[in-house]
Amino acid sequence: MTADKKSNGASRRAFLKGAVAAGGAVAGAGMARAAGEPDPLITEVQEWASGFGEGVDATPYGLPIRFEDDVVRRNVEWLTADTISSINFTPIHALDGTITPQGCAFERHHSGAIELKKEDYRLMINGLVDKPLVFTYADLERFPRENHVYFCECAANTGMEWAGAQLNGAQFTHGMIHNMEYSGVPLRTLLEEAGLDAAGDLADKWIYVEGADASSNGRSIPMDKALDDVLVAFKANGEALRKEHGYPVRLVVPGWEGNMWVKWLRRVEVMDAPVQSREETSKYTDTLADGTSRKWTWEMDAKSVVTSPSPQSPITHGPGPLVITGLAWSGRGAITRVDVTTDGGKNWTQARLAKDGESKALSRFYLEIDWDGSEMLLQSRAHDETGYVQPTKAQLREVRGENSIYHNNCIQTWWVKESGEAENVEVS
Amino acid sequence: MTADKKSNGASRRAFLKGAVAAGGAVAGAGMARAAGEPDPLITEVQEWASGFGEGVDATPYGLPIRFEDDVVRRNVEWLTADTISSINFTPIHALDGTITPQGCAFERHHSGAIELKKEDYRLMINGLVDKPLVFTYADLERFPRENHVYFCECAANTGMEWAGAQLNGAQFTHGMIHNMEYSGVPLRTLLEEAGLDAAGDLADKWIYVEGADASSNGRSIPMDKALDDVLVAFKANGEALRKEHGYPVRLVVPGWEGNMWVKWLRRVEVMDAPVQSREETSKYTDTLADGTSRKWTWEMDAKSVVTSPSPQSPITHGPGPLVITGLAWSGRGAITRVDVTTDGGKNWTQARLAKDGESKALSRFYLEIDWDGSEMLLQSRAHDETGYVQPTKAQLREVRGENSIYHNNCIQTWWVKESGEAENVEVS
Repeated sequence: MTADKKSNGASRRAFLKGAVAAGGAVAGAGMARAAGEPDPLITEVQEWASGFGEGVDATPYGLPIRFEDDVVRRNVEWLTADTISSINFTPIHALDGTITPQGCAFERHHSGAIELKKEDYRLMINGLVDKPLVFTYADLERFPRENHVYFCECAANTGMEWAGAQLNGAQFTHGMIHNMEYSGVPLRTLLEEAGLDAAGDLADKWIYVEGADASSNGRSIPMDKALDDVLVAFKANGEALRKEHGYPVRLVVPGWEGNMWVKWLRRVEVMDAPVQSREETSKYTDTLADGTSRKWTWEMDAKSVVTSPSPQSPITHGPGPLVITGLAWSGRGAITRVDVTTDGGKNWTQARLAKDGESKALSRFYLEIDWDGSEMLLQSRAHDETGYVQPTKAQLREVRGENSIYHNNCIQTWWVKESGEAENVEVS
Repeated sequence: MTADKKSNGASRRAFLKGAVAAGGAVAGAGMARAAGEPDPLITEVQEWASGFGEGVDATPYGLPIRFEDDVVRRNVEWLTADTISSINFTPIHALDGTITPQGCAFERHHSGAIELKKEDYRLMINGLVDKPLVFTYADLERFPRENHVYFCECAANTGMEWAGAQLNGAQFTHGMIHNMEYSGVPLRTLLEEAGLDAAGDLADKWIYVEGADASSNGRSIPMDKALDDVLVAFKANGEALRKEHGYPVRLVVPGWEGNMWVKWLRRVEVMDAPVQSREETSKYTDTLADGTSRKWTWEMDAKSVVTSPSPQSPITHGPGPLVITGLAWSGRGAITRVDVTTDGGKNWTQARLAKDGESKALSRFYLEIDWDGSEMLLQSRAHDETGYVQPTKAQLREVRGENSIYHNNCIQTWWVKESGEAENVEVS
């Protein structure tokens, strides 16, 4: 498609030429105003420039301006039987950059969000350890801390899309994800504090982690992961975790499915085998075409999505310069490349990563094109540092069938119409 | 001091030995419970584990849990005549990591925070350009965007401390700073769009930038900086700027004093000389001992502060492992090293940077020590990539005298008492 061809290998200079079309139009409007059709927003003193605004004591905790009230997490009522054990979705269609503000970061509850005071918080480490320990919140603050930016993605993200295009909007198809800077203590440090000599050979050992809520949401984690990069976190984006994210302490399991990031972390038991709990057998396993299920599918495969334009973020202008942007991530390391197509996969153009990919964190990509105003089949395709390339839905179905709920990382298609509106569609 | 000597070059193993003292104490308490003094928080089923919590539809925009209600921006009433032209302070004593949540990020208003709809937003570029342009918000969204994490520090941060230790808490002495991930369009792109041929030799040209609020807060910026890394930003930490931070569009001037980060950006004029506006002559200049004033002091010098322990974040435990942490930054590039002393500068220990320093962004440092319970004179000292080292207050006064308000980047001292409480003090 011309739009794609034009953007293909477009130089910055070429882009600016393209932009002159828009700039020119704008300048035209400006000159028209100069010629006697003045823009009152330029020529007249505005109300907001002729009086005082609010003082610095107006809000104790700052909130988004009221004009942004639609940029919020949303749940899908028909998706779950109740809201206590349910999900809401990050408004990724309306965000930019890579950091997810806590206020917008999706939530998944198994028995609702509980209130747990720091003073009432206890973390027990028991099982195959030299000395079982009980930590208070104040104890945890005395161990060396680390800071890392990681994405947290629910294994069920995009799970409704297996059978076909179901949910119309990036928030709903891909919004079970957030990306925050965590501060906490490596779990390794706490396990070493309890002593692992009693565990003997660590190669075949596991930990079982559970939360303080009614669901307890227990999960088994192999010891090598537990000693690698798992964090016992108490801050996200600098401030305390929100109640809904496990205040005061949650587990951070980088690159692995969100269900393992146990909230209100209560206990870590060192064991010689996995527990085979409900959350890792009847749930969070992947049923294949023949009815058998894969388990221990912890890592989140490389994935990406165009966040704008998209159904909730249509194009609001005519032909000319258009910014296509989206997010990419991999549970196996850093994103190394993202390709974008406007013709459903016939021609691909390498997008621009805003920064070098960070391991197990969101990457923001941009592709500037000169849109010719015709319809587009918009897709993005992520590559990670292991060489893995994000598959098409057809490729994924060949291996996985259509019975799965979890771990759908296939390429997403938006049909962008001449009107600029977009729809969630499938391409064969 | 022993605490300092012990931590000096302490190996991780040595730290963990130290930590065993705490861990041991904890374990001791644990065993005491096992011996018949059970902790009901471990042995009994808690209320929060025996019922449902809140559903995923409880809050449209997530807020901190009520137990964190004291972690908020605060102003100092006696500091300014009114709150319309005043400042509030980031609660840096209670935060960790490097990202500042928008809700906690300090504000400085010259005529109050105004409400400006995206639809009503206009940005004019005029003066010595080939074609004056007027951009709408939608126009700006069509240009290539960049993402960068930068600190924004008010030039008056720490300004009350010139004459002596005045404000008792890191929030008040150093809280006129925040650090966010910005998404926006390079100003260079918009200036190129208007065309700079008319400006001739750019080496001696300036831009004048002003905001849409009543104060307009106009500032002159040399063209080389304008074409370097200045951003026209519309997102911070992924979401729209808060009203109080200039919604929908503010200028980001990396490494330079916050007053130049014009909010509600309305106009950029290309000029052949600086305007010498109120905000760069009678204000935001540095009066020296002899009564003359320095002007054009835009860059924020390398600086650091210990955020915990500090007056608002006292030590709440006895001798043994203690985490000392704080923030460091430089307007000239990346932080390369931070030293910490517990004896008022006699002995310095290199602290651990949580990550490699990022240019013109906050760095988080940690130093783990085995505190012997005696009083400390706690200081931190930043080094940046230019080789600049943060000065003592005495060294700064030698050059600057005591008449200044702005650009006080001297080493801060906290007197930490045996009780664990801390006070803002000076050491000679």
